[in-house]
Amino acid sequence: MPVPSKKGSDEGVSAGLAKAIVEARPEAMPEDVRHEAGRALVNIVGCALGGADHPAMDVAIRALSPYAGKPDAVVLGRRERFDPLFSSFLNGISSHVHDYDDTTPSNYIHPTSPVASAMFAYASVNPVSGLDFLHAFVLGFEVVTRIGNATYPAHYRAGWHSTGSIGVFGAAAAIARLRGLDAQRMAWALGLAATQSAGLRDNFGSMAKSFHPGAAAQSGYRAALLAEAGFTTGPTPLEGPRGFAAVEAGEYDLSDLLTGFGTQFLLSTNTYKPFPCGIVIHPTIDACSQLKAEKGIDPANVKSVRLRVAPLVRDLCDQRPATGLEAKFSIYHAAAIGLVRGRGGLAEFTDEAVRDPALAAMRDKVEAVADPKVGEDAVIVEVTLQSGEVLQHELLQSLGNLARPLSDAQLEEKFRDQAKVVDAERADRLISMCWQIEELADAGEIARMSCPG
Amino acid sequence: MPVPSKKGSDEGVSAGLAKAIVEARPEAMPEDVRHEAGRALVNIVGCALGGADHPAMDVAIRALSPYAGKPDAVVLGRRERFDPLFSSFLNGISSHVHDYDDTTPSNYIHPTSPVASAMFAYASVNPVSGLDFLHAFVLGFEVVTRIGNATYPAHYRAGWHSTGSIGVFGAAAAIARLRGLDAQRMAWALGLAATQSAGLRDNFGSMAKSFHPGAAAQSGYRAALLAEAGFTTGPTPLEGPRGFAAVEAGEYDLSDLLTGFGTQFLLSTNTYKPFPCGIVIHPTIDACSQLKAEKGIDPANVKSVRLRVAPLVRDLCDQRPATGLEAKFSIYHAAAIGLVRGRGGLAEFTDEAVRDPALAAMRDKVEAVADPKVGEDAVIVEVTLQSGEVLQHELLQSLGNLARPLSDAQLEEKFRDQAKVVDAERADRLISMCWQIEELADAGEIARMSCPG
Repeated sequence: MPVPSKKGSDEGVSAGLAKAIVEARPEAMPEDVRHEAGRALVNIVGCALGGADHPAMDVAIRALSPYAGKPDAVVLGRRERFDPLFSSFLNGISSHVHDYDDTTPSNYIHPTSPVASAMFAYASVNPVSGLDFLHAFVLGFEVVTRIGNATYPAHYRAGWHSTGSIGVFGAAAAIARLRGLDAQRMAWALGLAATQSAGLRDNFGSMAKSFHPGAAAQSGYRAALLAEAGFTTGPTPLEGPRGFAAVEAGEYDLSDLLTGFGTQFLLSTNTYKPFPCGIVIHPTIDACSQLKAEKGIDPANVKSVRLRVAPLVRDLCDQRPATGLEAKFSIYHAAAIGLVRGRGGLAEFTDEAVRDPALAAMRDKVEAVADPKVGEDAVIVEVTLQSGEVLQHELLQSLGNLARPLSDAQLEEKFRDQAKVVDAERADRLISMCWQIEELADAGEIARMSCPG
Repeated sequence: MPVPSKKGSDEGVSAGLAKAIVEARPEAMPEDVRHEAGRALVNIVGCALGGADHPAMDVAIRALSPYAGKPDAVVLGRRERFDPLFSSFLNGISSHVHDYDDTTPSNYIHPTSPVASAMFAYASVNPVSGLDFLHAFVLGFEVVTRIGNATYPAHYRAGWHSTGSIGVFGAAAAIARLRGLDAQRMAWALGLAATQSAGLRDNFGSMAKSFHPGAAAQSGYRAALLAEAGFTTGPTPLEGPRGFAAVEAGEYDLSDLLTGFGTQFLLSTNTYKPFPCGIVIHPTIDACSQLKAEKGIDPANVKSVRLRVAPLVRDLCDQRPATGLEAKFSIYHAAAIGLVRGRGGLAEFTDEAVRDPALAAMRDKVEAVADPKVGEDAVIVEVTLQSGEVLQHELLQSLGNLARPLSDAQLEEKFRDQAKVVDAERADRLISMCWQIEELADAGEIARMSCPG
């Protein structure tokens, strides 16, 4: 049974958060936060385009579109339109299904997918200025990241996929903010978000992983609509003895949740993935690719590979994959693609790549040892060649993390690599619109522009 | 951090459950189980009619109907039709909002609402024979009750409203069974149910309590549709280290989950509420009503009331209510309505009843003491009169529990009391159809017949 442990009093935290979201002012966002929001949007729209034609999307549309409402809201990167709740769900799947989106390393949440997925669906059918969109996004991101930090690591370690289970709060907050809810209704929206918080890590490596931000986007959007109409909840969804933190984390600290909310921004702690897979195997892809480039390794000459990794890596990614989705959570596959192909792009995480005999053979040579002294951004790779020679490479900071962030130009390149469902000119326009979203009279233009044809 | 504790091996429990649901045969249901299913259906349809015009329904429809799909599926007791997913959601709200439905005392779940709410919406737009409906309902109920027992009390005590968080498995199983899914797809349906498992007890006393079976019905229905189309999940949604039981219960025992599944039925452990409120305050309403009837108590002569109750009662119902929904979880209100009005019907749990000065005055005289020696079906009431005389009443078995079940005639009476949205003749026909559901060529007739006009 989880035993709540807290510093200070949590009384009124949910009500205080609701009030803070309602009272936040766009003017309080400094220039660097606005720019970082642009980076997050360039990244997520690109990911949504890259995932728009994934089989998980086709399956979800085939299964559920017969039940969708008025077809007016945009699904990023697709021709079909659906009601905005279902479109939110689909945007969440597409933008997360390649595991290529963003991550706050303090809590391993991918915050933008659930928040922006709801917002783009909303903005595609409701007038929202670019500035209001940007601000509501920043607030939604902030809600996710703060709740994530307050309940990390207990919530994640217990087995929750927090991108879903905490993402729902951000989607609810952002849509409720765009709808102009008052503080009481905002509190109910947070209450309805809390009571829809869900998503189990048992699904890593299956389509259901991307279901989580999809469901979070849709559930958060629904929470805002119900709350606006007067659907009531309990008063303490975050801090109550039967509320989110006690039930789903057990150990948590809500004492800083409101400190500087609306004026100090955790968006600056966001990172963008250079590889489309679980972030904890990024150091291995990076290090193995470097080693291959530097030493010109021929896979046939490799006898064995020994990785020393952070314990979390084994906890999450100790699997021999049978599908592309499973490969995204395989430390063995990560080493193999680095050493065989020298890269980790979308093509390295398909079912076909998993069946590639060269990659399969290399995977079988890899062992991974958990070492608490190795950081989660790091890895030590030892490759033993058939000759007996041992090549060692230690990587301390993985590409894409806060110490080695992707540049704006790299984010644009990542966008173009993924944006195959639209032509190059439209891809460039979408990138520009994300950078200059504050200038847009109607943020929904981005959503509409993303649709092929 | 929850530490799983298990007897025996749980390996393959999810896959085994999926297979058992797919392979179960209607012929294996004995006559008493079929009759008990009729009782559950009479009870839940009556509750849905009774809650059909509750403000929570009007709010939900106002908020979300603009996003609903093709309006073909029935909302029990309402004129409007919506797509079957949204109708499932609404049926879950209406059938639970008065806290008048049913309960399996072994785990405090109200299993029928989430399961039948999805099923009636489904059957209203898809051909389902009465026998298939009955069997799928019995299987869905069984899934809920078995998972509930396997994870009780840890799951409930942690703060989950298991009617939602476990109800979703039953809705998914029942709809997937009606759709004829194979074992692999049934397993994915259970996986998608697990990853949507949600609902916090912080919401007891608000509209969001009834949101839980509504969301469970809708999420379970969605799970079945997605799984049918091939949306994949992890392989161990129940037993995995990051699956439902470990994440949401911590302590559990899955070793009996499959024993006799499909041939031994826990439906026989179901009970039906005689009072529309949290079941743990039923003994107090019952005892105080008896005391008033036997002793002719005049509220003005009461000086103080002392209740000795099971500890769970204080845990759940220690509140001074401001609304009718809160009164459903107030041990003080329970004593007051028994001693002042001698009854606990729908009229005793309205906002108006909460404001009744006679009830408010009596509530203020009541104290409740937790006593581990008092059973959860029992209460000891001590009323001290102004004269100094003390009247004591000990109740060991509350009306409606397994030792004092409501009779079929009492269930019919309860149905008619609630079925105000249809005329008396139609109410009688609905009751007959529930009793004789096995004879129906099309179970959807019940749903359609419940609509006014």
